[in-house]
Amino acid sequence: MPYEFVRLLMLQWICTTGFVTSETADDVKNLIKKLFHSDGYSKNIRPLIKQSDVVEVETHMILNTIIDFNEKEESIKISGYLGMAWYDDFLKWNPTDYGGLGRLLFPQNDVWRPDVALHNSFRNFTGLGSNNLLLAVDNTGAVTWYPYQILEATCDVDITYFPFDTQECPLKFSAWSYTIDEVIMIEGEKGIITEQFEENSRWSLVNTTVEEVKGVDAMVIFKMKLKRKSTFYVFNILIPMVLLSFLNVLTFVLPVSSGERASYAVTVFLSLAVFLTIVASEIPKNSNTISIVSVYMTAVLALRFATVMTSLLELRLASRAKDKDLISSGYMAIYRLARICQCRHDGKSRSATEIGWTDVVSALDYFLFWLFIGLTFVATVVLFVVAVKR
Amino acid sequence: MPYEFVRLLMLQWICTTGFVTSETADDVKNLIKKLFHSDGYSKNIRPLIKQSDVVEVETHMILNTIIDFNEKEESIKISGYLGMAWYDDFLKWNPTDYGGLGRLLFPQNDVWRPDVALHNSFRNFTGLGSNNLLLAVDNTGAVTWYPYQILEATCDVDITYFPFDTQECPLKFSAWSYTIDEVIMIEGEKGIITEQFEENSRWSLVNTTVEEVKGVDAMVIFKMKLKRKSTFYVFNILIPMVLLSFLNVLTFVLPVSSGERASYAVTVFLSLAVFLTIVASEIPKNSNTISIVSVYMTAVLALRFATVMTSLLELRLASRAKDKDLISSGYMAIYRLARICQCRHDGKSRSATEIGWTDVVSALDYFLFWLFIGLTFVATVVLFVVAVKR
Amino acid sequence: MPYEFVRLLMLQWICTTGFVTSETADDVKNLIKKLFHSDGYSKNIRPLIKQSDVVEVETHMILNTIIDFNEKEESIKISGYLGMAWYDDFLKWNPTDYGGLGRLLFPQNDVWRPDVALHNSFRNFTGLGSNNLLLAVDNTGAVTWYPYQILEATCDVDITYFPFDTQECPLKFSAWSYTIDEVIMIEGEKGIITEQFEENSRWSLVNTTVEEVKGVDAMVIFKMKLKRKSTFYVFNILIPMVLLSFLNVLTFVLPVSSGERASYAVTVFLSLAVFLTIVASEIPKNSNTISIVSVYMTAVLALRFATVMTSLLELRLASRAKDKDLISSGYMAIYRLARICQCRHDGKSRSATEIGWTDVVSALDYFLFWLFIGLTFVATVVLFVVAVKR
Amino acid sequence: MPYEFVRLLMLQWICTTGFVTSETADDVKNLIKKLFHSDGYSKNIRPLIKQSDVVEVETHMILNTIIDFNEKEESIKISGYLGMAWYDDFLKWNPTDYGGLGRLLFPQNDVWRPDVALHNSFRNFTGLGSNNLLLAVDNTGAVTWYPYQILEATCDVDITYFPFDTQECPLKFSAWSYTIDEVIMIEGEKGIITEQFEENSRWSLVNTTVEEVKGVDAMVIFKMKLKRKSTFYVFNILIPMVLLSFLNVLTFVLPVSSGERASYAVTVFLSLAVFLTIVASEIPKNSNTISIVSVYMTAVLALRFATVMTSLLELRLASRAKDKDLISSGYMAIYRLARICQCRHDGKSRSATEIGWTDVVSALDYFLFWLFIGLTFVATVVLFVVAVKR
Amino acid sequence: MPYEFVRLLMLQWICTTGFVTSETADDVKNLIKKLFHSDGYSKNIRPLIKQSDVVEVETHMILNTIIDFNEKEESIKISGYLGMAWYDDFLKWNPTDYGGLGRLLFPQNDVWRPDVALHNSFRNFTGLGSNNLLLAVDNTGAVTWYPYQILEATCDVDITYFPFDTQECPLKFSAWSYTIDEVIMIEGEKGIITEQFEENSRWSLVNTTVEEVKGVDAMVIFKMKLKRKSTFYVFNILIPMVLLSFLNVLTFVLPVSSGERASYAVTVFLSLAVFLTIVASEIPKNSNTISIVSVYMTAVLALRFATVMTSLLELRLASRAKDKDLISSGYMAIYRLARICQCRHDGKSRSATEIGWTDVVSALDYFLFWLFIGLTFVATVVLFVVAVKR
Repeated sequence: MPYEFVRLLMLQWICTTGFVTSETADDVKNLIKKLFHSDGYSKNIRPLIKQSDVVEVETHMILNTIIDFNEKEESIKISGYLGMAWYDDFLKWNPTDYGGLGRLLFPQNDVWRPDVALHNSFRNFTGLGSNNLLLAVDNTGAVTWYPYQILEATCDVDITYFPFDTQECPLKFSAWSYTIDEVIMIEGEKGIITEQFEENSRWSLVNTTVEEVKGVDAMVIFKMKLKRKSTFYVFNILIPMVLLSFLNVLTFVLPVSSGERASYAVTVFLSLAVFLTIVASEIPKNSNTISIVSVYMTAVLALRFATVMTSLLELRLASRAKDKDLISSGYMAIYRLARICQCRHDGKSRSATEIGWTDVVSALDYFLFWLFIGLTFVATVVLFVVAVKR
Repeated sequence: MPYEFVRLLMLQWICTTGFVTSETADDVKNLIKKLFHSDGYSKNIRPLIKQSDVVEVETHMILNTIIDFNEKEESIKISGYLGMAWYDDFLKWNPTDYGGLGRLLFPQNDVWRPDVALHNSFRNFTGLGSNNLLLAVDNTGAVTWYPYQILEATCDVDITYFPFDTQECPLKFSAWSYTIDEVIMIEGEKGIITEQFEENSRWSLVNTTVEEVKGVDAMVIFKMKLKRKSTFYVFNILIPMVLLSFLNVLTFVLPVSSGERASYAVTVFLSLAVFLTIVASEIPKNSNTISIVSVYMTAVLALRFATVMTSLLELRLASRAKDKDLISSGYMAIYRLARICQCRHDGKSRSATEIGWTDVVSALDYFLFWLFIGLTFVATVVLFVVAVKR
Repeated sequence: MPYEFVRLLMLQWICTTGFVTSETADDVKNLIKKLFHSDGYSKNIRPLIKQSDVVEVETHMILNTIIDFNEKEESIKISGYLGMAWYDDFLKWNPTDYGGLGRLLFPQNDVWRPDVALHNSFRNFTGLGSNNLLLAVDNTGAVTWYPYQILEATCDVDITYFPFDTQECPLKFSAWSYTIDEVIMIEGEKGIITEQFEENSRWSLVNTTVEEVKGVDAMVIFKMKLKRKSTFYVFNILIPMVLLSFLNVLTFVLPVSSGERASYAVTVFLSLAVFLTIVASEIPKNSNTISIVSVYMTAVLALRFATVMTSLLELRLASRAKDKDLISSGYMAIYRLARICQCRHDGKSRSATEIGWTDVVSALDYFLFWLFIGLTFVATVVLFVVAVKR
Repeated sequence: MPYEFVRLLMLQWICTTGFVTSETADDVKNLIKKLFHSDGYSKNIRPLIKQSDVVEVETHMILNTIIDFNEKEESIKISGYLGMAWYDDFLKWNPTDYGGLGRLLFPQNDVWRPDVALHNSFRNFTGLGSNNLLLAVDNTGAVTWYPYQILEATCDVDITYFPFDTQECPLKFSAWSYTIDEVIMIEGEKGIITEQFEENSRWSLVNTTVEEVKGVDAMVIFKMKLKRKSTFYVFNILIPMVLLSFLNVLTFVLPVSSGERASYAVTVFLSLAVFLTIVASEIPKNSNTISIVSVYMTAVLALRFATVMTSLLELRLASRAKDKDLISSGYMAIYRLARICQCRHDGKSRSATEIGWTDVVSALDYFLFWLFIGLTFVATVVLFVVAVKR
Repeated sequence: MPYEFVRLLMLQWICTTGFVTSETADDVKNLIKKLFHSDGYSKNIRPLIKQSDVVEVETHMILNTIIDFNEKEESIKISGYLGMAWYDDFLKWNPTDYGGLGRLLFPQNDVWRPDVALHNSFRNFTGLGSNNLLLAVDNTGAVTWYPYQILEATCDVDITYFPFDTQECPLKFSAWSYTIDEVIMIEGEKGIITEQFEENSRWSLVNTTVEEVKGVDAMVIFKMKLKRKSTFYVFNILIPMVLLSFLNVLTFVLPVSSGERASYAVTVFLSLAVFLTIVASEIPKNSNTISIVSVYMTAVLALRFATVMTSLLELRLASRAKDKDLISSGYMAIYRLARICQCRHDGKSRSATEIGWTDVVSALDYFLFWLFIGLTFVATVVLFVVAVKR
């Protein structure tokens, strides 16, 4: 039996009925006979003597677990139960007439219930609860109903900051077939009760809010704010990706003379391709926005492409013979600039004739290394700053 | 309670009934007793006094979300609800006789309903709605029914322009067992209402149309035109694919003398193979037509094969010794042509004897590079032009 | 309402009843009262006055789509509906007694139906149709029933000629609990109606046949012959596989002196391994027979293994020093033969002493290239001939 | 209508009733009225006049297909139907009183049935058959029931000899709520009937047995022995794996001087890693025992590791200069031993000074090649012997 | 019929009723008539004459199999059945009045049952058992109910020690709609009965406990402690991962002069990337904690990155010419230290001028090899120690 709400009802009932211990099964039978046969209870009629009044259904929600959050389908699946309470004018009795009996339980299909439905549902409308579920009524006519339910709702997803994103999912409940003049849903005091909530392995529940909306329908909207737990992604996607990025830049460390540079460059590219097969299966397949991780990955890919291209061009330069192809003044300038930057070798100055194409390439390596390491560093820092800011 | 349609009905009802506030639960009971017991309502009889008339069922649709679009199964899965309205001759009453009561709600199974079915369904026929769903009747006999439903329908898919494609899916509703002389479906004023529509992560809803078809059955066809959101594919498939294409052409930049050309060429080929494993899992597995992306990919693969082949042949040429294998005049011509094109080296002219096989290969490299870069460029441009034109 | 069959029934009924326009809801009520209460209709009794007669159920099928064909589970899943018609002796009436009423509709559970079941089903027996489905009866007692259904049936699969295979799937219907002396299924004139058939993305419907089988049960067997659409497989599996096969042979084009041959050979092998990961996920996981594609792939793998092995052995030969290891006469013969075949170099004849191990390896390359290209070509041609012949 | 069992019943009935052709629908109605209304049949009472007797339910099973066998969940899913027969004391009549009527059919829920359940089920208990299923009774009170069913049962799996394994799965049926003194299940003559059995694509049915167990419950256990069809695994896993194993050994064929050995060795290792991604998705994920295939794969992996390691060590040896690092006597012995084994080079004997580190490495290659080829061969042979023995 | 509990009940009943053999079907009918019609049994009333008393439901559980344990969803799925027993004051009779009849069976929906629900369920509340299930009552009013069920419950997962982890899952049962003053669940003597338990392929059942909790509701909590079977992971993940780790360290064995070091280092890195694709699909996708395996893998990745980086830097050093770039004293020190450590070469001392950059790199190799092998070894040992300690 769910919580304090019930306790309250029970207390109230104990108070009003005074001495409760004497009721018998026959009292119960008599009461049922009276309510359903003598009074002719009809579960199709709103439980109000004055039909122009409005039935107020107080609602709160007990959240058990978040089962699944699907970024592609943009849906959320939770388990929990709604607590609903309303007054039924036709289910009142005087406890003293029935041996002090103050509370009755019925199968849910025997009495009037609002046809509450999840407005943004992902499943067929079938009604809440089941035939086997019982519903409690006390002698003042207060009915309480706790249908345990798996709820699947649509949820607008924004994956821009994946995997550091926060999502907000509403669960919109209304009495499906009734207008606002017939049945309204009102927000209970408790909102979403999370005492029994068991942590999800992928999302942490940041906070919950409840709203009442009164348009054509009177809805109660339960909102859950979820923050993605990102350790899995940091360890399995971000760290390897950053390492691969820097591995890429190291291409320029490998001397041209080693005869392995093209192999190295293209194999690092291949490693990225392989790694992309892992990433592609983990990233949410959602085309609304591009996540910062995808942008980073595309940047890394473009840098890698540039690296391979410049490496090959350098190799072509290095294969030139100084006597056939003269070193143009532009290349000479690059070489001299590199000499200045790499201070330790400055002591020796060499004449132009001594300088060959390999020296030029070596100078280029120096600048390209710092250029690419700079770009990679900037991209990585931007990624993490955006992530941390969230 | 769904929208303006209902409001209209309510207005109408308020007008006809004048003063509404005085009805009691007993009025409702009496009315129910009158309709179902005294008048002997039978839910198996079409609700017309004159049975040779036709029941007109006005239909519109409220679309909530597109849950899934399956290119392989050629199906679409949406959530939403149909709004249906018709007149029931046997559910009319004079509100003044029942305390001004103007509206009644019943479980859907208590009254006659058309056995509306989705004609191109992907699921068993089970009827719309559920036993827990209520249906509203006003005193003029106007019945409104809003069965919330997950609908799965077949949809003819054309993936030629994937991932820039647009698809049109019809949802064909008819009264399954009734002929056109018994029950006809007619199109409501609203068509498909998309006010509550939540964007799908993969498809955007371009427009919706409604059609009435009168053949053996009187169908209402709701059509949805969907455009695929292509950012995911552009970032994860097209950009890497184009980069890989150009990486391939760079083979000819790598000098033969580097001793890495075969390795480089075949490793780029391998990268493509790895990348294909990602692409293969994203491309719709549909054999009706070939998508432009698949054609592009096959072209890239063929170019890559040609690249590897010519590279190896060049390596064989380069390994020839000038003294053993004379350079034929064809090769000489290629060499001289290359010299002319690469203007900057034109100053020096060398005698035939000075020219070795490596010079010939270098000339070949020059032409092949521009040939393959041209082909790759043309293929890529064609791909994007076709895509943009859509 | 389904097609011409119904039209026929309607025509017939219009003819027999003459003037139809005057029936009222009361006529319908009276008729129902007469049939079900006065005459005491029982849905558990076969609808024949003389119970020793046989009920003949005429059956045809309207095929909508093929949803799935599962080679591993050897099952087929289709959507469509059966059309069934029989005569019910107890549902006859004189239209003139009931205002010319000639046609009635009932929920399917109200009247006798044969318990038709799919004999080779893949799902629990639950009976066709649903409680919400209606069934039409005309005044001659002719009952027509159109249960819309998703049918899953077992289907014997032979994947030998995959992806150029043709499969035939039977759907065996019989009246489950009745013997041949009680109810028999007979084949309707139409067989399988495919007017509304929407093409499957993987299979094309070649033709359909219907058979009646009279053993212990009287079955109607609907057979569908399906041909696999192979473009997807040709583009995504066969073309890359053939390209990889030829890439493999190119190993012998690469000169031994390039110092890259082992790398090249093993990287091509690796590309095949990667590519196998794609193929493995596309090929039907069925162990009854081996498909020609699998055989081809195994042949390619074996050839590739042979290529790598011979390449390495050649490298070992090439590393021999002529002075340490004399060239045996066998190798000499190979060299001379190669010289003769490569006509253009025939002019120069060299003495035995001039010939080194590299020349022998070069000669071996020549023969091995033509040998492997021949084998690859034969394997590929055989594959396509077998495919085309089907 | 299922098989001979029924025929027998029919024969028997024809014999006892003599002349059968005269029964009418009214006879059937009268009989039903007599049995269910006059005699007051109650489906909740065991069908025995003397309630202390035991109801004997004869059971056999008709097996249609094996749908799935799941090694991870250790479950089997089959389609087929149980045939059950028992005597109902309250469903007897004299055929001559009812126009010779000898056989009646009822919806299964109208009469008493044993609540037969699959004891080792993988699904919720829901009872066999469905409301639409009919059940036949003849005038002697013999009831026959053929509920078509998909059965999912747990099955203890031993994957040690995968993919050459044989599994045995029991299906344990008992009358769930009845004790052995109330209802017992007995084995029918037929056991498991496999005439309609359609071969599974992965498993062949070796044999079937039936057992009766009488403990607290009286169970009938149907056992199926299944042998895995291994062609798929042989072609897609074993053959490539064996080829890769031998490719590995070829590392020692590649001369150290080629400058490609480390690349070759590590690329072969990579190919294995890639191939493992295929194997990992095919091998049953079951941790009870380790399959021989997994052991083989681990052995291959270890051998490959050893190969790479020894290759690298050889390269280090080969890079030594003879003048700096003297060749120790151990290496000398290895060299001389290799000389002796490789008979053809025996003619020339070289002095110690002529021998360099490359000669030593070459000798090591010779021994390591035969060592590893031996180990690989032994492992492969052991694998196949174990497999064949099964 | 389940176990000893029942036997006990039966014994008791036999004892109290004395001679049992004479009951007839009419006795049963009379008893049913008496209980349900004369006494007016109502299944909606708690089965107590004095309604202020509490119904005690004794509960135990028979566990059949663990079907699935899902680390991502944090859920467990088991098959088994609850055994429940309580006393019903209104289902008592004197056996001698009914021919000695001592036991009756009813469909479960005919009598009062507690609406027992799994409190931490993963599925909709639907009530236990099914309409076809029977429930036994003896003449003392003792009711026993054995609903066979698939239960899915949430379970808090801690994957820190994966794959050597132990998990504990509770199944919390309470009478959903009743307060502690109406119905309480009490723990039966047997707790969880595991005699029929069939081993899961991934988890072994360590032990089971039962607890009673009395808060607002009176719950019975069945706890199962599970230990993961780790052989699959050891063979398929840990062993290959450890081999790859050591392969990585071997980079420093490969002499710089071989010209393959960069290729080797990056290809080993690539092998790891490929292998990660397998691991990523096997590791539980749970972000609550990081498993030790993930930490190990990240460490290995970082080491590998460091290896590649240092290798490339060494190559750059090795490419320096001694005359252009003087060897600094730091490098000299490293070289001399390495000389001392590698004792066997100590005999020869070389002058500073003889020492080139390659000698320095060789010395660095020596230290880096031992450094990295040490780090790898420590990481591996820590992993296994943590694992074994659990």
